Amino acid sequence: VRVAGVPRRTIWLEADGWSVGVIDQTKLPAVFETVSLKSYHDVARAIRHMVVRGAPLIGVAAAYGLALALRDDPSDKHLSTAAADLFATRPTAINLRWALDRVKAVVAPLPPDERAAAAYREAARIAEEDVETCRAIGEHGARELVRIYQARGGSQPLRVLTHCNAGWLATVDIGTALAPIYRLFDDGVPIRVWVDETRPRNQGYLTAWELREHGVPFSVIADNAGGHYMMRGEVDAVIVGSDRTTANGDVCNKIGTYLKALAAFDNEIPFFAAVPSSTIDFSLPEGASIPIEEREPSELTSDFEARNPAFDVTPARLVTGIVTERGVARADAASLAALFPERVG
Amino acid sequence: VRVAGVPRRTIWLEADGWSVGVIDQTKLPAVFETVSLKSYHDVARAIRHMVVRGAPLIGVAAAYGLALALRDDPSDKHLSTAAADLFATRPTAINLRWALDRVKAVVAPLPPDERAAAAYREAARIAEEDVETCRAIGEHGARELVRIYQARGGSQPLRVLTHCNAGWLATVDIGTALAPIYRLFDDGVPIRVWVDETRPRNQGYLTAWELREHGVPFSVIADNAGGHYMMRGEVDAVIVGSDRTTANGDVCNKIGTYLKALAAFDNEIPFFAAVPSSTIDFSLPEGASIPIEEREPSELTSDFEARNPAFDVTPARLVTGIVTERGVARADAASLAALFPERVG
Repeated sequence: VRVAGVPRRTIWLEADGWSVGVIDQTKLPAVFETVSLKSYHDVARAIRHMVVRGAPLIGVAAAYGLALALRDDPSDKHLSTAAADLFATRPTAINLRWALDRVKAVVAPLPPDERAAAAYREAARIAEEDVETCRAIGEHGARELVRIYQARGGSQPLRVLTHCNAGWLATVDIGTALAPIYRLFDDGVPIRVWVDETRPRNQGYLTAWELREHGVPFSVIADNAGGHYMMRGEVDAVIVGSDRTTANGDVCNKIGTYLKALAAFDNEIPFFAAVPSSTIDFSLPEGASIPIEEREPSELTSDFEARNPAFDVTPARLVTGIVTERGVARADAASLAALFPERVG
Repeated sequence: VRVAGVPRRTIWLEADGWSVGVIDQTKLPAVFETVSLKSYHDVARAIRHMVVRGAPLIGVAAAYGLALALRDDPSDKHLSTAAADLFATRPTAINLRWALDRVKAVVAPLPPDERAAAAYREAARIAEEDVETCRAIGEHGARELVRIYQARGGSQPLRVLTHCNAGWLATVDIGTALAPIYRLFDDGVPIRVWVDETRPRNQGYLTAWELREHGVPFSVIADNAGGHYMMRGEVDAVIVGSDRTTANGDVCNKIGTYLKALAAFDNEIPFFAAVPSSTIDFSLPEGASIPIEEREPSELTSDFEARNPAFDVTPARLVTGIVTERGVARADAASLAALFPERVG
């Protein structure tokens, strides 16, 4: 994706060859600023404070975090301390564990002096795979959306609602939920996006910023407004990302997603989750057992007692389709297992 | 209701005997400040900019607005200009029309020199009736909530979710949706309130402020979070106000209410609307024909293109009961008509 004309990713190796550059997403959309992470503690802080966010990007960042840790101290003990610290930053997104496990599996058998280099290579590989995964999700999702556009006669723009930011900024490049939207836009299909503000962290403004940079038309709305527009027939499809999807197709995503899924279902509007397979947790039978992160109430208000859960679970029965890099599954165990047979016992 | 120990209403005649005092609700919860309205233009501006808000309070304010207009010029022409200007301030709340029609009906037959005094008397009468109406709503609503509390075994506090502010600040005193909550709290029933933030105007903080002044325990949550807590079994009932309820029991209320009603229905949680009969529009068969006010997008954001509908419609099928000053009706035409036979043809 280009920012002010310059091709960008959300995470990269700096010119020194070892520190890790990221965009400070807490400053967006007001200011585009990058920051260099030089230790695994820097990475853990960046994840915890949402300097980097979005399940796929968190995974890549954590992988680089292990590489930084091993560069400082390649011992078994430091490896497991760093992995545990990085894992503890955010409990809900499953990519974090997936990426850490992947790097650990690669480096564990190696002699200490080879570990850091191997971790950097594996982190870079995870990043490249994420780009390809998002590209494939874009293609499969676009096919679904085009069908809806054509079924509506193609007389006016396709109107897609999204919640939070599952775009370029949540991944290495392209995005998950936004990938099909970028794809259709680039292919010349008329499309408009309803962007949920997404309180309390307002990630909708990250989505708005991305879409504006790319030229895709959109309107920001309060999280309260999506149901109204669905009822009035002004939404043709809903597409969101996911921080963790369970074996049965329950979709855990940013708080408020469940409410939009209910409204979509009530108005017979297709509801899709765009899900890299790294975010599918085949070990959990259903969403009720996903740990839900509670964040600082001060993200909402400092003046009153408040609660601030960061995610909710959308039951599979409300989900029309799960868009993965291998194609679109129905939200049920059989259909997901058929796409990823190697992942199920 | 007391504010810092002083008994208060939300609207009153000033010591001069003719100008109209109100609380500037745009300054709350940060600052408690009152303002004097001295012409009907002042009143229209106060309604439009939400210095006063809440359907019942808007009605009373508009009635006083007509009194101020007639004090300046009691002619038929001025009466109808002022009524039209006041009516145009906010299109959704039906009380506005109801209160204006009521004052007009009283003053129209009178000679010009008697009109202003009669309008002041009628406005005061509407205000007194509102207090009594809210008291009765509190009583009927409390009975419903106590039943739920007892059915749950009474072992832990009753947890009630509300959206927007339908409390003391939205009426002359006591409130509509909050009236049963204050009543139960005063009766010693353990109760806790989930307070939706209610973007974009954040009226949830008015509710939080009210509840804190009164000592009722609560937590503010993002509008996104209510569904999550319902799914986790942490909400026992939902109660909201209404700006206009139609003959069939469709409930038009602050944007986002529909989403909470869907989540309550999905989790088998009772959903009540607390509705003074002045907000019931028996002339409209259903909610789809209610005009929905679109407010300035800048209430949401000035940085991006945005849309800002102020209300949505919750279909009667999602509403467990409509709490009126005469008792609780089911959300259907027959049940509402049975409570208010004089209002239906």
